[in-house]
Amino acid sequence: MTLFKKNKKSSVKLILASTLLFLATILSISWLSQNVNKQVVVFNTSISEDATPKVLERILNADAKPISEIKFEKGTYHFYPDKGLEKFVHISNHNDVIVRTAMPIFNFKNLIIDGQGSTFIYHGRMIPFLIDNSNNITVKNVTVDWADSFHSEGKIVANDTTKHTFDMEISEEYPYEIRNGQLIFVKEYYEHHLGQSILFDPKRKGITFDTEKYTPLNQFGKIEISRNVDKVSYKYPVDKLEPEFRIIGRENALTVEEIKPGLVRIHNTKGDLPPVGNILVCKGEQHENRLAPAFRVTHTYGFNATNVNVHHAGGMGLIAENSADLILDSFNVTPSNGRMVSTTADATHFVGCRGKVELKNCTFNNQLDDATNVHGTYQIVQDIKDEFTIGVRMGHFQQQGFVIGKANDTIGLVRLSNSFFPYNKLTIKNIKKINSRYQLITFNEKLPADLEEGDLLENLDAYPELLVENCTISNNRARGLLLSSPRKTVIKNNFFSTEMEAILIPIESGHWYESGSVENLEIVNNTFQDCQHSGFNRGVIRFDTDDDNQNTAFKNVAITNNVFNQFDNLILQVTNIDGLLFENNTITNSGTFPQLHPKNPAIRISHSNNIKFRKNTYKGKAKTILEKDDSLKSLKFK
Amino acid sequence: MTLFKKNKKSSVKLILASTLLFLATILSISWLSQNVNKQVVVFNTSISEDATPKVLERILNADAKPISEIKFEKGTYHFYPDKGLEKFVHISNHNDVIVRTAMPIFNFKNLIIDGQGSTFIYHGRMIPFLIDNSNNITVKNVTVDWADSFHSEGKIVANDTTKHTFDMEISEEYPYEIRNGQLIFVKEYYEHHLGQSILFDPKRKGITFDTEKYTPLNQFGKIEISRNVDKVSYKYPVDKLEPEFRIIGRENALTVEEIKPGLVRIHNTKGDLPPVGNILVCKGEQHENRLAPAFRVTHTYGFNATNVNVHHAGGMGLIAENSADLILDSFNVTPSNGRMVSTTADATHFVGCRGKVELKNCTFNNQLDDATNVHGTYQIVQDIKDEFTIGVRMGHFQQQGFVIGKANDTIGLVRLSNSFFPYNKLTIKNIKKINSRYQLITFNEKLPADLEEGDLLENLDAYPELLVENCTISNNRARGLLLSSPRKTVIKNNFFSTEMEAILIPIESGHWYESGSVENLEIVNNTFQDCQHSGFNRGVIRFDTDDDNQNTAFKNVAITNNVFNQFDNLILQVTNIDGLLFENNTITNSGTFPQLHPKNPAIRISHSNNIKFRKNTYKGKAKTILEKDDSLKSLKFK
Repeated sequence: MTLFKKNKKSSVKLILASTLLFLATILSISWLSQNVNKQVVVFNTSISEDATPKVLERILNADAKPISEIKFEKGTYHFYPDKGLEKFVHISNHNDVIVRTAMPIFNFKNLIIDGQGSTFIYHGRMIPFLIDNSNNITVKNVTVDWADSFHSEGKIVANDTTKHTFDMEISEEYPYEIRNGQLIFVKEYYEHHLGQSILFDPKRKGITFDTEKYTPLNQFGKIEISRNVDKVSYKYPVDKLEPEFRIIGRENALTVEEIKPGLVRIHNTKGDLPPVGNILVCKGEQHENRLAPAFRVTHTYGFNATNVNVHHAGGMGLIAENSADLILDSFNVTPSNGRMVSTTADATHFVGCRGKVELKNCTFNNQLDDATNVHGTYQIVQDIKDEFTIGVRMGHFQQQGFVIGKANDTIGLVRLSNSFFPYNKLTIKNIKKINSRYQLITFNEKLPADLEEGDLLENLDAYPELLVENCTISNNRARGLLLSSPRKTVIKNNFFSTEMEAILIPIESGHWYESGSVENLEIVNNTFQDCQHSGFNRGVIRFDTDDDNQNTAFKNVAITNNVFNQFDNLILQVTNIDGLLFENNTITNSGTFPQLHPKNPAIRISHSNNIKFRKNTYKGKAKTILEKDDSLKSLKFK
Repeated sequence: MTLFKKNKKSSVKLILASTLLFLATILSISWLSQNVNKQVVVFNTSISEDATPKVLERILNADAKPISEIKFEKGTYHFYPDKGLEKFVHISNHNDVIVRTAMPIFNFKNLIIDGQGSTFIYHGRMIPFLIDNSNNITVKNVTVDWADSFHSEGKIVANDTTKHTFDMEISEEYPYEIRNGQLIFVKEYYEHHLGQSILFDPKRKGITFDTEKYTPLNQFGKIEISRNVDKVSYKYPVDKLEPEFRIIGRENALTVEEIKPGLVRIHNTKGDLPPVGNILVCKGEQHENRLAPAFRVTHTYGFNATNVNVHHAGGMGLIAENSADLILDSFNVTPSNGRMVSTTADATHFVGCRGKVELKNCTFNNQLDDATNVHGTYQIVQDIKDEFTIGVRMGHFQQQGFVIGKANDTIGLVRLSNSFFPYNKLTIKNIKKINSRYQLITFNEKLPADLEEGDLLENLDAYPELLVENCTISNNRARGLLLSSPRKTVIKNNFFSTEMEAILIPIESGHWYESGSVENLEIVNNTFQDCQHSGFNRGVIRFDTDDDNQNTAFKNVAITNNVFNQFDNLILQVTNIDGLLFENNTITNSGTFPQLHPKNPAIRISHSNNIKFRKNTYKGKAKTILEKDDSLKSLKFK
């Protein structure tokens, strides 16, 4: 019996083992059939002086000789643009650029790029990883940096309150010229003026406390002489923000003189004089300085970046559009070479993505814009072509060329003056791009009779679930997270120390045309340390709508078990929310900086319903903890 | 007999008639089979407010519903860019631009576009006719103009020799701003500064006599302060002429103040002060102002333009590349609306074309560059990749993206320091464009052992036969004809009155990289009236090489039966020619202007052989008719 039993067990084990073996065989055959004849390509440091031509040649030859993996012998590899593949690309929230790359990952499936600890140094206007229309792409164990930065840094060494000037020391690392009184930083294949600027505190290696008092400097002012320019007429709407129009009516307001080589004096700044010892960081003209993100991912299903360091980029660390299932684990944006700044725009940014977006164990430090921004796109109904087809206009010049979705995606028709939510839905049949600003969208269904020119479209299928977990977000300009996805969003176990909001949840339609609300948001177990320290009178976590009305914009939010250790009062600012639980949070005063807005409450709520406070601890300095409008009479902070 | 004879004749006639009928039937069947199911599309003036969307829609639908002809009811049609098809295009001798069009004629065969006398008015950055990869395309009976010009004009109303300033009146037609002392002309979707400028004499409606004394104004000067910019290093060659590099080291030198609305004072011009009454014409920065040619034809076999008027374009009237058999009959470039200027660059221009190029019965007036320029392209051997493949670099930034030829074309390998003619030949297998500056060319044959980096390539198959007949070329800036094709070139029965050379035949390799010599050229029965009147010390017909040596550059030229009615002496300037017949020409002095270079001979010849003078009449003012070097001791003017 024992034997029998044993045998019986053995048989079961055997059957199980056979089954597993069978399954494993099927799986490996399946894997093999996918990867059969695919090569593991290994590059060694013999190509390190300019890796571009050899890497590009092999990638362009992948149709004939498929690749499963590209490995680099550990080392430092330079990538120059001169022999790189050139593409004209519209990049969301960047300039539309002619850019070069050594890694055009177009139409790949199941590809791994493994730097094995290597550092890739880029020169000029390049996109290190340009990934399009691919599936299951992994990049790992690599550090990305640029030889010359796309921004510049200078140390404030003196200021003169009588003449309202300040002096800045510029190291040899930042070659410059003075042209007609303008300071121009000249780089390899690039240059910029003082333009967008901000102060860093070198002791904290973070944005200077109360920098809004000093920066931005006023690069531009209004012109005095303009004749008949107002008579230049345009048949169709124009975007006065776009480069061609933005320059009209303004001129340089700053002037710069050189005191001695490496020392310049800056006249005519708008704000207070920057304090001595601070580092002025500048990156030039807003519409020119986002041209070389480190990773650009489009129309790609399955993207993994693991153990990746991005020390710099002339734009974002990663910009993903119309893609799905993007997992960033240990994707770190941090500065190198003693620079104050890592990337010159957001660390990461996701537009019209779906499936899952996960940011885990990441550090996002010292970038010149948000740590992440997850949103869709509003497109404007410009004209109705026939009963199925409309012409749409892209609202913001950095959304030019963006395609809102694919066949059968559900499009919401939105009229924000009436509601933040769609008044009707249609599904896409096809989209024809006519130009950067104008596309024709044909739907499967007839257009509703009440559709009007000026209404907005958003893609209801192109929002992702989002997880941000175990990340450190600090010392950067602007926000931590901008959240605009109605799908499940979890922000968990992170550390925030940002100069503006740690978390901003906006609905806006008049400027960026970034669509999306929040409907299921958990903010749990995070630490907020001295956020909003640059001077704005705003909450650490802030919900915001462009349109001042009582309509519900946000639903079902839980903010639980967080620590707010802030120097100032306002930690939570809420509007137009239906359903908020604020529980088990601890609010203390850090004393790190003097208070900037001591009259603020800790929490401000308006136009909202179903708000609950439970078991929170308040040890801050606010005289009023909770400020609310009349509709929430009985609500109390607990 | 008579009858028989008659019958025989009748039979012959009958047979002939039957044969003709048979042939006609075959031809019409062939024509029918080509044009069966093809539509004649007729647009009427109901679309005239903005013809772009309807015209574009129909053309984009031509695959499904083929078109044989597009007709326009006679009228005035506006074309706006807002709903135009957008393309990023490299255009030879223009900027590389993102441009919009209502007429993307891509992959068409046997298409006629008939304006039936209509005028098409364009707005902003558009290319009216963007023709690519097509066969047998005809455009006829249409006038092209722009609502706002890409250049600006102002009248000189005063000047002050003490302060070295001049005052200019600007009409409402040219809206402007002053930004930081710079005059900026603002247009619909475009703007420019004083930049490239020249004077027009409104009485003659042509370039001002001796304008080189006054223009160009010096928009730019050298900067004084530059630190470490010389340490910015580049691994590969860079083109200091290209926009990114050209701006380094220079700043605006002119300053402009407004005296009253519509009247500005210009300080710090380089030359003499422009005389009162002249019209200053300007078009801004050289690398920004060629962006909207009227016709752009590429990779097209068979192109006819008949009875076409081009009143303006922000670039050339017609630029054709890599095309064949281009016949322009009554293709007229002339200004409209009282403007001094027609197109802001060449009237026509042909790069790498083959078969025949014919310009017949054309008027090319008042454009801001040559009437035509026919040449190929030198590309630079940058690196040798393997025994069949080289990497080539485009020499000039306005040749970016140019593809030198197609499979099996014969490429000459040139080392100009040794010879103006190829030292070896190869045929193309394929070309891979890597980026705007860099392409990989693989040949059918092994590379010769003596091929070196820095050698040049020219396409020996991509030069056309050229006929310029019954044309009027006058009142424009720069030259009449630039000729660089070794195939039969006939210049016959034309009238020239140009401010520089009427005919320039160059070989140059260091700046424009425009390839091609002249080997069979007839210049016959033309009238040259007061050419070279802007001040340059050069011949009316001039042969020129960059490289100063004795090598033969040009062969077999006949200049016969022409009239040179010139105010100044030098009518013919020749170098490095083998075989020149100068016969039956009449040279007189017009007395139109004072002589600028009275010491010049009428004819100057160096480094040349086989020169013949016969039966010419000289009634000019030159003390020496013929100036020559020692090798031509016995040569005499007759």
